[in-house]
Amino acid sequence: MTSAPSSILNTSKLPALAGSLLERLRAERIRVHAITNAAAQTITANLLLAAGGIPSLTIAPEEVASFTSRSTSLLVNLGTLDSDRRAAIPQAIASALAHAKPWVLDPVFVEASPPRLEFARACLAGRPFVLRCNAGEFAALAGHVATPETVRAFAKAHGTVVALTGAVDLIADGERLLLVENGHPLMTRVTAMGCAATTLVAAFTALHGSALEAAATALLVIGVAGEIAARDAKGPGTFQPAFLDALFNLDSPTLIALGRAS
Amino acid sequence: MTSAPSSILNTSKLPALAGSLLERLRAERIRVHAITNAAAQTITANLLLAAGGIPSLTIAPEEVASFTSRSTSLLVNLGTLDSDRRAAIPQAIASALAHAKPWVLDPVFVEASPPRLEFARACLAGRPFVLRCNAGEFAALAGHVATPETVRAFAKAHGTVVALTGAVDLIADGERLLLVENGHPLMTRVTAMGCAATTLVAAFTALHGSALEAAATALLVIGVAGEIAARDAKGPGTFQPAFLDALFNLDSPTLIALGRAS
Amino acid sequence: MTSAPSSILNTSKLPALAGSLLERLRAERIRVHAITNAAAQTITANLLLAAGGIPSLTIAPEEVASFTSRSTSLLVNLGTLDSDRRAAIPQAIASALAHAKPWVLDPVFVEASPPRLEFARACLAGRPFVLRCNAGEFAALAGHVATPETVRAFAKAHGTVVALTGAVDLIADGERLLLVENGHPLMTRVTAMGCAATTLVAAFTALHGSALEAAATALLVIGVAGEIAARDAKGPGTFQPAFLDALFNLDSPTLIALGRAS
Repeated sequence: MTSAPSSILNTSKLPALAGSLLERLRAERIRVHAITNAAAQTITANLLLAAGGIPSLTIAPEEVASFTSRSTSLLVNLGTLDSDRRAAIPQAIASALAHAKPWVLDPVFVEASPPRLEFARACLAGRPFVLRCNAGEFAALAGHVATPETVRAFAKAHGTVVALTGAVDLIADGERLLLVENGHPLMTRVTAMGCAATTLVAAFTALHGSALEAAATALLVIGVAGEIAARDAKGPGTFQPAFLDALFNLDSPTLIALGRAS
Repeated sequence: MTSAPSSILNTSKLPALAGSLLERLRAERIRVHAITNAAAQTITANLLLAAGGIPSLTIAPEEVASFTSRSTSLLVNLGTLDSDRRAAIPQAIASALAHAKPWVLDPVFVEASPPRLEFARACLAGRPFVLRCNAGEFAALAGHVATPETVRAFAKAHGTVVALTGAVDLIADGERLLLVENGHPLMTRVTAMGCAATTLVAAFTALHGSALEAAATALLVIGVAGEIAARDAKGPGTFQPAFLDALFNLDSPTLIALGRAS
Repeated sequence: MTSAPSSILNTSKLPALAGSLLERLRAERIRVHAITNAAAQTITANLLLAAGGIPSLTIAPEEVASFTSRSTSLLVNLGTLDSDRRAAIPQAIASALAHAKPWVLDPVFVEASPPRLEFARACLAGRPFVLRCNAGEFAALAGHVATPETVRAFAKAHGTVVALTGAVDLIADGERLLLVENGHPLMTRVTAMGCAATTLVAAFTALHGSALEAAATALLVIGVAGEIAARDAKGPGTFQPAFLDALFNLDSPTLIALGRAS
């Protein structure tokens, strides 16, 4: 795993960067340990396998440090916070920090439960490379609505990259702000698609020195695969296998042709 | 969420009612909090998303009350009764009762385990709007085999609606008894299809004052989607995505053309 | 459930044996209780349903003995070892031993976590009928790399059958060694395919007196279904439903035509 120094790429180069990171993920068989919610585990593993990486998923508190230390990155998703996950997550984050592994936080439904909000804030103190959230989750964490300015300010204050996903994805660190316009509405009709997509963010942060660009290119790859899958899908049922196939078959020329980032 | 008063519909009107409830589910983005078994979580969420609603799935005891109170209805499924679910279920039911949310009980495999039977009986005391079960589960709970008479008597004694699913679904409250004949054998070859179907029962009970008619129309929608999916499926593998597509695309004219209720 | 005495079949007869065991599984509706990892639960259940059996999946410590005693065999998979599974597995194994039910062990990722390795060794003392593992897991358990000789020696020392899966599957007891060459690389791109396949091993051990031949024929069935599924699949997404369809539709003539065992 070699990490390039943080780059400041012309945004027109992001689709090509996406292609090269995807090729490296496949060549290096990137391993992501994912502590994720019960509905996301299978699709998260299948998405990473389709992309060419190797997932592991255990949530046992006494095992997550070992699994994290032998992975290239860590994903922490708060979607179903049972007692094992509550105990395991701090240990996994500590292991990632101790071994200098990048890690990514996905605070699912943090707006729906006060204890989850408190738990998410404690996680944020561990400085995730990327915080992936939607507008409702951002508002709960930040205490105000998401705008380009508030997202950038939140990223700066917490020393992280915020990847705010929606019809257009907005990715910001304290300085720069990128937009990714790829994607398809059917992605919101398959449970845990966003959670699973965050695994690719985690994988790309291990491959590229700029977490901002890693997050943006990962979301671009997911969005392009979603657009390809939607061409033939008759609904959310056939969309999901088509999405995994599209990700499995995706190459740089297709990403360059279809990627829309600015 | 407006609930019509309990109605006594001519059964020939059930397919049209099914169509209008499905349209309202989509328009109102009905939220169901589902505490369901590990094998059912993904398909339950995907079924509700395909139908047009919004699922949540957390089983954390300290969170389920919040999630239940912001949902339109609650689904409790006993399929994998680990320690978190055992602790969470009473709190979720209490929250549903406190906030006057409809809730539905699915006592999976209750005939296979004495502690589960005892737990299910304690749940029943919370008067679910609908008890969805198969013949084996009913027999374990009731202490005798399911017949139209025993099902009606059980419903009356427990102040609930019994939705007994099988080749023909039998839905009864203490007074009336409805039959729904839609469905396809491939539905029994996909794990947790019945569990997932119960989510739609939970959603419809929030939209219609008669839990009897809500349950019958939800099962009719599921059965019609299953029949459409089976037309092109080559087995249980392709059946599942086809089912979600069919549910996503289902409309009132199709339900009226294909629905068989009496 | 009648078990033939241990047989010593000419390996050319293995595909025909596979077909007859699959037919018996369907006719007798074999029940497997699977304590398996979170990412494997759905596909494990769907694989067994597609094959014609009946799965149950509960991991609650107070329930697994009941579920095991009413099943025809037990599958124990160590993929996500949370506190409930740690407590449940010894009780399920004890129930299998007390009721003379065959049971199968799948020590997933045992090389990645010292506490898991210790737990797996304790399970092995309960003498599983079959230990299903890959080369990395075998090496961790045995303390040396897998070769035909070391696999045979390990099987003899532990009184079990080792089913070592890979590009070619190697199945050995203390005396004989079988090779199964069916399968397709796409099977490694779907999470938990190997875990799910082990359910069929568990089912076949209940139907045939030789655990060696039961394991080999189960893996042959899975491999042939994988080859059929790969013909039309465009990637790992469409591969999975195609695999379940192929298994659902598989018959003896196809197994005899495509099976490659020696």
